[in-house]
Amino acid sequence: MSDIRDIQNALIKFRDERDWEQFHNAKDLAVALNIEASELLELFLWKSANEADHERIKEELADVFAYALLLASKYELDVKEIVLAKIEKNALKYPINKSKGIAKKYTDL
Amino acid sequence: MSDIRDIQNALIKFRDERDWEQFHNAKDLAVALNIEASELLELFLWKSANEADHERIKEELADVFAYALLLASKYELDVKEIVLAKIEKNALKYPINKSKGIAKKYTDL
Amino acid sequence: MSDIRDIQNALIKFRDERDWEQFHNAKDLAVALNIEASELLELFLWKSANEADHERIKEELADVFAYALLLASKYELDVKEIVLAKIEKNALKYPINKSKGIAKKYTDL
Amino acid sequence: MSDIRDIQNALIKFRDERDWEQFHNAKDLAVALNIEASELLELFLWKSANEADHERIKEELADVFAYALLLASKYELDVKEIVLAKIEKNALKYPINKSKGIAKKYTDL
Repeated sequence: MSDIRDIQNALIKFRDERDWEQFHNAKDLAVALNIEASELLELFLWKSANEADHERIKEELADVFAYALLLASKYELDVKEIVLAKIEKNALKYPINKSKGIAKKYTDL
Repeated sequence: MSDIRDIQNALIKFRDERDWEQFHNAKDLAVALNIEASELLELFLWKSANEADHERIKEELADVFAYALLLASKYELDVKEIVLAKIEKNALKYPINKSKGIAKKYTDL
Repeated sequence: MSDIRDIQNALIKFRDERDWEQFHNAKDLAVALNIEASELLELFLWKSANEADHERIKEELADVFAYALLLASKYELDVKEIVLAKIEKNALKYPINKSKGIAKKYTDL
Repeated sequence: MSDIRDIQNALIKFRDERDWEQFHNAKDLAVALNIEASELLELFLWKSANEADHERIKEELADVFAYALLLASKYELDVKEIVLAKIEKNALKYPINKSKGIAKKYTDL
């Protein structure tokens, strides 16, 4: 079984042991994901990119993955499939010859 | 090779084809992650949990995974390892007997 | 003097007493604003709209205003002017006859 | 009448002309605030602090103020009062002698 599926199973087991599925509607999962992403970002506040605490990065990034994986599970999405599909779509929005070495959004290319 | 590693390799290839690693410092990756999480959340704005557009959920969630995986890669973190470690840590913060069926933050338990 | 200017002066005094202007570049102010907005949102996590703690709403909303006002100050923007201008711009994006009672984004109208 | 009250009246008029109050529960207002804060932050993505587009800063910051002011209105909060109260509270968390020239969070002081 894949790593992704292993992690999702552990997350679901943790959730069900605590009877928390009742709270895990998609909107609140998306809210939780945003809160965790923000806690990760806070580790860089007033600092430069290489000054964030590595131990705390591990924890906050883990929380971000937890909610992203629970959302993927909720919508029965294959994580590898949707990310590879998005990479292909992005290849069209950001052709190499137009975007190489350039940080502009595709709407500004 | 694991699914996670496959996705990370595809993301890194896409980044390097465009010479984008120069922009991918950890702070900006964390900012990008927050922006994508917010775009996902926007799909639920003014709506109830089950009204979000499924096609767009796939895209925005894929973007969230993309930046989370690039960050994990940047810090050389094993995604499965850090999430399972965080689940164990959470088991201590949220003992089943205290948190079953309850949505409170551990600081309010 | 306007209320807005009074608050900004108090914020700037607080900042300067602590010699914090060195950290208050616009990007970090925007990051801080996002973090505070997220802390406000967290008060609604797993809850319905009317269940958030009113005392904590006051504090977190105050923090959001603090960073928004510091940003307005940094860019020498008149808050009343920019919000009224945006309302006018929104009136064009959301004509009453097309958007009355409808929660769609203007791109979906 | 204060500037703050003028802006709030304009926002409420815009909302009521479109019969949008039905969507403006506090939770969705907080979600909208986060989305706008994120759109403001996006102007700094992959850039340094002084590279953000000033015209777009005006617009996105105006959107942040719009939702923050609608939330203040919803909870019948006096913006000046709550921000000044928070500044006083912060003065206790960040005594000048301990925090001068230091960017640490009060929990790390």
